[in-house]
Amino acid sequence: MERSRHQGMAKNTNMRWRLPLVCLLWEVAMIVLFGVFVRFGAEADAHWEEEKREMNLTSDIENDFYFRYPSFQDVHVMIFVGFGFLMTFLKRYGFGAVGFNFLLAAFGIQWALLMQGWFHSFKDGKILIGVENLINADFCVGSVCIAFGAILGKTSPIQLLVMTLFQVTLFSVNEYILLNLLHVKDAGGSMTIHTFGAYFGLTVTRILYRPNLEQSKDKQGSVYHSDLFAMIGTLYLWMYWPSFNSAISDHGDAQHRSAINTYCSLAACVLTTMAFSSMLQKKGKLDMVHIQNATLAGGVAVGTSAEMMLTPYGALIVGSISGIVSTVGYVYFTPFLESRLHIQDTCGIHNLHAMPGLIGGIVGAITAAAATEDVYGTEGFIKAFDFTGVYHSRTPSIQGGFQAAGIVVSLLMAFAGGAIVGKPKGSTMALSARGPARGAQGALPQVPEDEESDAYHMHNPDKPASP
Amino acid sequence: MERSRHQGMAKNTNMRWRLPLVCLLWEVAMIVLFGVFVRFGAEADAHWEEEKREMNLTSDIENDFYFRYPSFQDVHVMIFVGFGFLMTFLKRYGFGAVGFNFLLAAFGIQWALLMQGWFHSFKDGKILIGVENLINADFCVGSVCIAFGAILGKTSPIQLLVMTLFQVTLFSVNEYILLNLLHVKDAGGSMTIHTFGAYFGLTVTRILYRPNLEQSKDKQGSVYHSDLFAMIGTLYLWMYWPSFNSAISDHGDAQHRSAINTYCSLAACVLTTMAFSSMLQKKGKLDMVHIQNATLAGGVAVGTSAEMMLTPYGALIVGSISGIVSTVGYVYFTPFLESRLHIQDTCGIHNLHAMPGLIGGIVGAITAAAATEDVYGTEGFIKAFDFTGVYHSRTPSIQGGFQAAGIVVSLLMAFAGGAIVGKPKGSTMALSARGPARGAQGALPQVPEDEESDAYHMHNPDKPASP
Amino acid sequence: MERSRHQGMAKNTNMRWRLPLVCLLWEVAMIVLFGVFVRFGAEADAHWEEEKREMNLTSDIENDFYFRYPSFQDVHVMIFVGFGFLMTFLKRYGFGAVGFNFLLAAFGIQWALLMQGWFHSFKDGKILIGVENLINADFCVGSVCIAFGAILGKTSPIQLLVMTLFQVTLFSVNEYILLNLLHVKDAGGSMTIHTFGAYFGLTVTRILYRPNLEQSKDKQGSVYHSDLFAMIGTLYLWMYWPSFNSAISDHGDAQHRSAINTYCSLAACVLTTMAFSSMLQKKGKLDMVHIQNATLAGGVAVGTSAEMMLTPYGALIVGSISGIVSTVGYVYFTPFLESRLHIQDTCGIHNLHAMPGLIGGIVGAITAAAATEDVYGTEGFIKAFDFTGVYHSRTPSIQGGFQAAGIVVSLLMAFAGGAIVGKPKGSTMALSARGPARGAQGALPQVPEDEESDAYHMHNPDKPASP
Repeated sequence: MERSRHQGMAKNTNMRWRLPLVCLLWEVAMIVLFGVFVRFGAEADAHWEEEKREMNLTSDIENDFYFRYPSFQDVHVMIFVGFGFLMTFLKRYGFGAVGFNFLLAAFGIQWALLMQGWFHSFKDGKILIGVENLINADFCVGSVCIAFGAILGKTSPIQLLVMTLFQVTLFSVNEYILLNLLHVKDAGGSMTIHTFGAYFGLTVTRILYRPNLEQSKDKQGSVYHSDLFAMIGTLYLWMYWPSFNSAISDHGDAQHRSAINTYCSLAACVLTTMAFSSMLQKKGKLDMVHIQNATLAGGVAVGTSAEMMLTPYGALIVGSISGIVSTVGYVYFTPFLESRLHIQDTCGIHNLHAMPGLIGGIVGAITAAAATEDVYGTEGFIKAFDFTGVYHSRTPSIQGGFQAAGIVVSLLMAFAGGAIVGKPKGSTMALSARGPARGAQGALPQVPEDEESDAYHMHNPDKPASP
Repeated sequence: MERSRHQGMAKNTNMRWRLPLVCLLWEVAMIVLFGVFVRFGAEADAHWEEEKREMNLTSDIENDFYFRYPSFQDVHVMIFVGFGFLMTFLKRYGFGAVGFNFLLAAFGIQWALLMQGWFHSFKDGKILIGVENLINADFCVGSVCIAFGAILGKTSPIQLLVMTLFQVTLFSVNEYILLNLLHVKDAGGSMTIHTFGAYFGLTVTRILYRPNLEQSKDKQGSVYHSDLFAMIGTLYLWMYWPSFNSAISDHGDAQHRSAINTYCSLAACVLTTMAFSSMLQKKGKLDMVHIQNATLAGGVAVGTSAEMMLTPYGALIVGSISGIVSTVGYVYFTPFLESRLHIQDTCGIHNLHAMPGLIGGIVGAITAAAATEDVYGTEGFIKAFDFTGVYHSRTPSIQGGFQAAGIVVSLLMAFAGGAIVGKPKGSTMALSARGPARGAQGALPQVPEDEESDAYHMHNPDKPASP
Repeated sequence: MERSRHQGMAKNTNMRWRLPLVCLLWEVAMIVLFGVFVRFGAEADAHWEEEKREMNLTSDIENDFYFRYPSFQDVHVMIFVGFGFLMTFLKRYGFGAVGFNFLLAAFGIQWALLMQGWFHSFKDGKILIGVENLINADFCVGSVCIAFGAILGKTSPIQLLVMTLFQVTLFSVNEYILLNLLHVKDAGGSMTIHTFGAYFGLTVTRILYRPNLEQSKDKQGSVYHSDLFAMIGTLYLWMYWPSFNSAISDHGDAQHRSAINTYCSLAACVLTTMAFSSMLQKKGKLDMVHIQNATLAGGVAVGTSAEMMLTPYGALIVGSISGIVSTVGYVYFTPFLESRLHIQDTCGIHNLHAMPGLIGGIVGAITAAAATEDVYGTEGFIKAFDFTGVYHSRTPSIQGGFQAAGIVVSLLMAFAGGAIVGKPKGSTMALSARGPARGAQGALPQVPEDEESDAYHMHNPDKPASP
């Protein structure tokens, strides 16, 4: 071990410069691009007083900031604390989960501001940003955090950053296709965030498959304190999900409705998760992994439809189904994915994001197709689906069809993107190296010990030095 | 042990179906009842555009969502993270405290939306819900979380759900009597939430009394990490309590005032708690249990009066007194309750909720009785106490009398309700079984080892299997 | 040890009354002073209905509460959870860090409401408070929490309270000089909170220097769970910093802009921190202490300029630089400060608050000096810098000069104040006692074992009793 470490260090003499170089060059590029493109939007610019007069607003409270900032902060907590701590339930990855999640999210939001800005907030050569852009950047990075859940423990920080760069780019393209070209509604991101992010990550983890990870499964177990830390992640995701789904909905009733639908769906989801967790476990005990994850499926599954007139009982139905599907997924699908399809889904994102995301897309399509002017009111109907301009003559059933098309596009983009990103990594980076030297390092098999990741994983001063 | 476990499992063959069945049947019932009764209120419905015109509102920002949603999220955090983590200070119950709190709260809010809806938001055969209903449902469930603090470690999940069902029902009846029949003010729930919830829980735990729990007291001690987890609960309750007390107050000055009064009361409470904790401990050390609990009494004790013109110095006085009472309670009353009255108050809710709740009710009655048009202004006076319609001629002193009556009603409802709920449990469920078989299981006395709870407590994969 | 403990206890017979007495007398004084001086401001008073008419407001939503309350709650979380948990990374101080931070903050905010009230909200003999006062009180106490980071583990609770009392007083004087006399802008407190607080604390810790602390450095290391708890502190500070910097800015665009600038600066800061942490560590590993602390420097460094037209790319530049400076500080400056200047900076506040605070002040001066009517608009220019009344003719370059003067004043006040507060403590209180008896207590050198602190440090029931 000592020997291979020394060899590693010899190799690392220039390796240790890679993470710093990537981060610094990236940050310089960001500064240049922000300098060229990014400016304050009208509501954050010091010219706001003039803007107010032009828009005929009588009060500062009409600034979009006051409509969305509280929700933004809740979403911010979900991305950094929620996703970060949720992954601490694996006892070996607590550090890395929170720290690398922090790194990739901070890295990703800057690129997301640019990518999404070019597609959605570009005016006279400038990207004009406001609080809604910050929320959307967080959303975009959320899909990377989801994908990270599938590959946790299998990549180095640099690989994570490369993946983030690609995924944010592709996310923005996919989002543009759905929202602008297909004119699809997806305020809570069932399709754009969850379906896309999860299948992207699952495709990457399939390519990174390493058979020797299987035997060390017991190391992935949770421990007491890990479980309490993970519950912090779970609860913050669960509590703030109404803000997630309502953060970028239209002002007024749409935000209000989204929060109520999500609240109802999540409450129902907890009940069915507990029921099926108890039913499917031997001796009827509850499994902490289900409680930590499947209880959240209800938020994912109303992501598209929450701002529509889903109604509270509709939300309960969707939440109930998603809790069942997700829990069953943890018990039956995850082992199947690993043993048959060689997809090692570290955190079970297939159960928490992929399947509930698909449910969310489908429920959204059905809810849109079932919309009537009677239920929404004449004005509400047009406002809810933006049936204005070129979409003036779109009917609910056509909208439902486009919503369904959005699911398919998201899936295809995820598979293609994951394959593109995963492939070169698998071959060029050290992850596929499984020589005899590796076999000797059986002690910590799922903490990658190859030179790349050894060089960059978090420094824990108390970890006993390798002998 | 192995033997009794096998016997337990034989018995459990159908036991393990009970939690799933209860949860699933309950959720189906909820879906049906929501389908029949629950619809979006005017401000969350897609007809909002028409509503705005009718109500002569010029901006979406006038939607109640923007007045209350930030406070709602704070309350949500208090219920799920605050109460859940506060109870982790007991080293054996960390898991169960957070997980079961999650289960009972998600279960309870659905029933609370219905019960409170029938009483307060029923119109033309439908319950019309908005963000205020979500807050009230959280409040209602908060009283169950409080009661849970008294019986933590003594009940199975199913018993908890039964208790939740009864308590939510009774809470809504009591709330209706106070707010609608007695026309009492209680925005922060000193009476309806804290007094009612605490005495309800204390009555139940009295009935569930098991003498053999006494000798294992040392197992209830706290440990280092438990204490840090518990401080998360404490601090979130402490920080967000201003939101709790102001969440459903009238728009404008009342919400503003409630937050200020609560902020002041809580600050003072910390000081007197530290003082008395140090004074009453041997060697003058501070007791973590006091810091974790008694510091919160100041929020409870201004629950009724925070929205009134209590004034900041009034809030300091109330907070100071409640900190003293609560700390003294932990040192002297809790042992007394256990040894003389056979009330095993696991988390000390008598000190944190019961006594400060009573103080809160009394302070509210006094503050209301002392109100004058001079202090409130003519309009403010009528608005603050809703002295309109049939209450047109009510005077402050009469209002004070009704406030006092509210305390008594809450107490009676709590005692009666607790007795009704606790009794059948004590007899029909396995909790009172103390045969010789139990005596042999001395290893984990306060984790209930009877078949019921053994079947359903959380599954921790790392816990060494019983030999 | 047992012997010295007994001697200590003999001495302590009246010592144990000191903390209770100080707290109780203090609280009584607060009640009296609040009774004489503090009343609700117009927007929290029941006369609000009349006020609305006078101010020609049409809706309750125009109440300042709705502009600032969500930010207030975020700031509240930063002070109590953020600063408290950030300091838990030191394995021996977890308890004390969170608990004493709670005590000093609750103690300090009451005094801050009075001190700042007399300077800024005094009208007709009364201090009229509203939500902005609560935020400012939290800010003021924040500077004490910062100073606490330097002396963590070296003082008793009473000494902390004395320091809090002095520092809050001096903070308010310094703030008055800067904001009112120099007419300086500093909404996020780079100068008033961070520079002042940090250099105050560093001066105190210099005076409290004890050479025997050096050899026990390894005890200050972090451990696994401590690091996850500390990450809770880090992330809440990081996520809510946009609220910190925007909480008391002008309504509308200024709050909006502050949040965006801070968001950008913090994101950039994470990248450069990771880069330099990896570069400066042997073997290129990331140091958790850098991730926990230096990532926050970006929030400090835009404290003054965030509400100005810094622009997003400007924010990225400032954030990048501050992350580099802060990380380099942890690696090189902190050891230098300890070995050469005898400044034992327990939590490294020189790197997190002092240097970034100075950067923040300088960036603010430059941004102000570079302001033009073209960039801000005519009205926006006047509004942003309050160039009204006697400041009507102030130009940007003059404003820049005054901003720079504000840095100098804050530094001088901090040095002078720290020297005054630290000196008597160092001599009269037991901290400088280093007789032969102390040398024998080598077991826990950095937990002060003198009678004062032994008497009052937190009671942990599980800590094995001293032999």
